[in-house]
Amino acid sequence: MEKHNLTMVMDLYELTMANAYFLEGRKDEIVYFDMFFRKTPDHGSFAIATGLEQLIDYIENFTFYDSDIEYLRSLKLFDESFLEYLSKIRFTGDIWAIEEGTPVFPNEPLVCVRAPLIEAQIIETMLLLSINHQTLIATKANRMVRASKGIPIVEFGARRAHGEDAATLGSRAAYIGGCFGTSNIRAGKKFGIPVFGTMSHSWVQIFDDEYLAFKTYAERYPKSTVLLVDTYNTLKLGVPNAIKVFDEVIKPTGNRPVGIRIDSGDLAYLSKEARKMLDEAGYEDVKIMASNSIDENTIKDLRDQGACIDMYGVGERLITAKSDATFGGVYKLVAVEEGDEIISKIKISDNVEKITNPGVKDVYRLFEKKTGKAIADLLTIKGEVIDESKKYLLFDPVYTWKKTEIQDFEAKKLLVSVYKDGKLVYPRKSIDDIIKNRDMQLSKLWDGVKRVRRPHRYFVDLSKDLWNLKSDLLEKYSVRGR
Amino acid sequence: MEKHNLTMVMDLYELTMANAYFLEGRKDEIVYFDMFFRKTPDHGSFAIATGLEQLIDYIENFTFYDSDIEYLRSLKLFDESFLEYLSKIRFTGDIWAIEEGTPVFPNEPLVCVRAPLIEAQIIETMLLLSINHQTLIATKANRMVRASKGIPIVEFGARRAHGEDAATLGSRAAYIGGCFGTSNIRAGKKFGIPVFGTMSHSWVQIFDDEYLAFKTYAERYPKSTVLLVDTYNTLKLGVPNAIKVFDEVIKPTGNRPVGIRIDSGDLAYLSKEARKMLDEAGYEDVKIMASNSIDENTIKDLRDQGACIDMYGVGERLITAKSDATFGGVYKLVAVEEGDEIISKIKISDNVEKITNPGVKDVYRLFEKKTGKAIADLLTIKGEVIDESKKYLLFDPVYTWKKTEIQDFEAKKLLVSVYKDGKLVYPRKSIDDIIKNRDMQLSKLWDGVKRVRRPHRYFVDLSKDLWNLKSDLLEKYSVRGR
Repeated sequence: MEKHNLTMVMDLYELTMANAYFLEGRKDEIVYFDMFFRKTPDHGSFAIATGLEQLIDYIENFTFYDSDIEYLRSLKLFDESFLEYLSKIRFTGDIWAIEEGTPVFPNEPLVCVRAPLIEAQIIETMLLLSINHQTLIATKANRMVRASKGIPIVEFGARRAHGEDAATLGSRAAYIGGCFGTSNIRAGKKFGIPVFGTMSHSWVQIFDDEYLAFKTYAERYPKSTVLLVDTYNTLKLGVPNAIKVFDEVIKPTGNRPVGIRIDSGDLAYLSKEARKMLDEAGYEDVKIMASNSIDENTIKDLRDQGACIDMYGVGERLITAKSDATFGGVYKLVAVEEGDEIISKIKISDNVEKITNPGVKDVYRLFEKKTGKAIADLLTIKGEVIDESKKYLLFDPVYTWKKTEIQDFEAKKLLVSVYKDGKLVYPRKSIDDIIKNRDMQLSKLWDGVKRVRRPHRYFVDLSKDLWNLKSDLLEKYSVRGR
Repeated sequence: MEKHNLTMVMDLYELTMANAYFLEGRKDEIVYFDMFFRKTPDHGSFAIATGLEQLIDYIENFTFYDSDIEYLRSLKLFDESFLEYLSKIRFTGDIWAIEEGTPVFPNEPLVCVRAPLIEAQIIETMLLLSINHQTLIATKANRMVRASKGIPIVEFGARRAHGEDAATLGSRAAYIGGCFGTSNIRAGKKFGIPVFGTMSHSWVQIFDDEYLAFKTYAERYPKSTVLLVDTYNTLKLGVPNAIKVFDEVIKPTGNRPVGIRIDSGDLAYLSKEARKMLDEAGYEDVKIMASNSIDENTIKDLRDQGACIDMYGVGERLITAKSDATFGGVYKLVAVEEGDEIISKIKISDNVEKITNPGVKDVYRLFEKKTGKAIADLLTIKGEVIDESKKYLLFDPVYTWKKTEIQDFEAKKLLVSVYKDGKLVYPRKSIDDIIKNRDMQLSKLWDGVKRVRRPHRYFVDLSKDLWNLKSDLLEKYSVRGR
C-alpha cells in the first residue's frame, strides 16, 4: 500500500524543467536556493518560523511511486530515461534552516538548500507550502496572543480550515504561535497539544429547556462544566440558569464550576454583566469564555472596553489568517557551483523589492550584551567571520549613509544544519522545545518590535561583502538591461 | 496499517456531548441537522456547492482506530462503555445534499442529515470542513472566471495553499469553479484535471544568459514552448530573446511556439507592447500569459485597459480566497423525532440573521417556463406539494407585504438523496459531470445575479407553512426570553 506521500504535490513546471536539465546532462550540478519572505502579514514586524518538522517529514518520504511515474508517462512530456531516474530519486543534498518558534524577518533566508540541480528544484512546491502555511498561522496566533496579554486563547477553527491539513497542522502552528490548546482531537493525538471543548447550541436545543440541558451536562461533567449561555438570551436566561445549576448540581459535589461561554452579542457588555451576576452568586472564580469571530483587533478593543473575559475561543480568523491569508515565501536560486568556485546569482525585477539577495549566506542575530536584546539581523556571505571583540559597522542596505557602529555584542547564527548529504542531522524537536525556543527568542526582542499595530522597524542588514556582491551583480545586469 | 482517516478531525465537544448523550440513553434518538451558510464571500450573490465527494469519502471511512480510542481514553473524560460504543460506530443515517457544481444561496440547506443523535452530532466538524473549504475555492474561482469572460484561468497556487489538502482539493474546487487546469500534478493524477506549467525564473538564471535559457527550453519542448520573459527586462530583453528563439529554434521544426509569460510589472502595458512585438514578428497566434497576484478585480481592470492577455495563471489569491478567506457554513439542529412526530427546533439569537430556519425541509428552485430562468429558491416543509399547474404566491420572509404571484413555472428539487440508512445511494459523479451540471445550472441564472460586483438580489423564500412554523417557534421563545 502506498503511504500518504506528498512527493506529487508539485507544480508541473518543476518536472518539465527537470526533464530538460536531465537531458542536458546537468542534473548533478550543485546549486543553492534560499527560501525567504518579503513582507510580514498584517503589517507585522516579524513572523514565527514554523513548518520545519513537516518539511523534514516530506523529505524523509520523498519518493515517486510506480503509479506516479505511470501518470507522468501519460502526460507525454518526459523522456523515458528521465522517468527511470525519477523513479529512484531521493534527496541527497544539504539543508539549513532557522529553527521553529524563532521570530524571523523579511528578506532573510528561513531555509537554504544546497543540492544537485534537479533535487533542489523539484522540492520547491512542498518546501514553500510547508513553511508558508504554518508560519502564516503561527504568526497570526502570536499576534492574537500578544494582543490578549496573558488571557489564554484556544484555537477552535477546524470547521473553517482549508482542508484537513489546514485544520491539524494549523492547530500545531497556532500552538507554536502561543495558543493554549485546540479543539481538534486529531491535533491533540498527533502532536500532544492540549484539547478543549465546551458544548454547542445543539446540546441546549435538544433538551426541553436550557435549564435541563445545563443540569444534565453538569451532572455528567461536574469537574469541567463550561456552559454555553447564549442560545436563547444570555443575561435573562443563560446566566441565571447556569448559576442555578452551579448551585444545585456542582456545589453539592464539592467541585467548582469551570466557566460559561458567550458566543454572540456584545461581548464587552455581556461579559461585564455576566461577571457581576456570577460574582454576586459567589462564583468569582468561574471563568468567562468568549468566542465569535475574534481576532487581535477585537481582543484589543474588548480589553479597552473593560470586558471581563478570561479565555478566548478563536476560529476562522485564526485558522485561515483571514485578514491576510497568504504567507508569501519564495524560493530563489542564489548560487551555482562551478568546480571549486561558487558563482552567485541574482534575480532582477522592475519591482525593486523583488530583487533577490544573491550568494550563499549566513544569517546572524546580533544581541547587545548589556541588555541581551536583539539589535538587528545580519546577512553575510557564508563563512565571513564577525569579530565580536571589535566594533562592527551596520549600515542600511538602501540608504547606505545611515550607519550605526555597535560593540559589546554577540552574534548568533540562526541557520542550523538539518540535512547533510541527504541525511537528517537535525535532532527533531518536541513541541515543548519549540515553545521554549519561541519564548526565549521573543524575550530578546524589544517591546516596540513586538507591538501588534505599527511596530518599530527591525533591521535586516547586509555585511559589507554581501552588499558589494549584490551591487556588482546589479551593475552587471543593469548594463545588459537598459 | 491505519489508512489516512479523517474521523479524528473532530472538535472535542462533539465527543463530550456524545458521551453524555450516550450515558443519558439518548444515542439512538433521531435528529435532523441542516448545513447552510449565511453570507456569500466577497459580497457575491451565490456560491458554487463543492465538496460532497470528499464528504462521502469521509463518511465511507468513518471509524475510530484502536489508537484513537486509546488517545481518547487518556483524556479521562469518557466512560468506558461509551468508548466501547465509539470503537464500533459507523454512520447509519440519511444524508441529502445539493449536487456539486450547483450555484447555491445563503440560508438554504446544502446538506441535510437525519441520523441517530450521536452520529449526526459528531460528523459536524468534517462535514463543515469538507463543504466549507471547497465551496469557498470554487466560488472564488467562479468569480474570476466570470470576470475573465472566456480568457482561460489556470490555478497555480499550491505553494501558498494552507497545507496539502488545500493545494490538491483546492485545485479540484478551482476546476469545478471554472478554472482551465492546475499546476499541481497530484491533483492532475487524483482527479484527472489538466495540468499546465511554464518555467521558473531559476531556469533562466541557471544559464549564462536568457537567450541560451530560452533556446535550450525550446529545443527540448518545441511543441509546448512557453517562455518566461520577465527575469531581466521584459521588453528590452525577454520578448526579443523569445522571438529570436521562436525564429531560430521553433520555426525550423515546423511547430508553432505556444506563448510567453509575464510575471511582474504593469501587465496591461507590457502585454500590449509584447503583443505588438510578437505580431510584427509574425507570431499573431502566440499567446500571452500573465501571472502575479491576479484576482477578479485585477482581471476586470486589465480588461478595461485593453491588456492583451490570453491566459491567466492565478495563485495565492485563488487558492486561499485571500480577499475573503472563510466560508461560514454552519450545522444546526432543526428537528428531532419523538415517536412518529417530528418536533421542529429553532436557534434564537440577538443577531436576527443568526436565527435558524426550523424544521425538516425541501429546497426547490423555481424556473420560469418561458425563459427557463430561475425565479427564486423556495424552502418548504419536507413533503409539501407545489402545484405547478396553479399560481403560487411568493413573499419576502421579512417584509411579508412584498409579494409576487408566479405561474407557468417549474419547481425542481435541489436536495438529492446521498445516504439512506447509512448506505451510499448516490452515484458518484465524475468531475466532467459536475462541470456539466455547473454550466447547466449557471445558464439558468439571470446575468444580473451573476454580476461579480454588486449583483442583483436572488430570493430564497419560505413557503407559507414553513414561515408559519418559524413564526410560531419565535413567538414561543420570545415569551420566554424577554
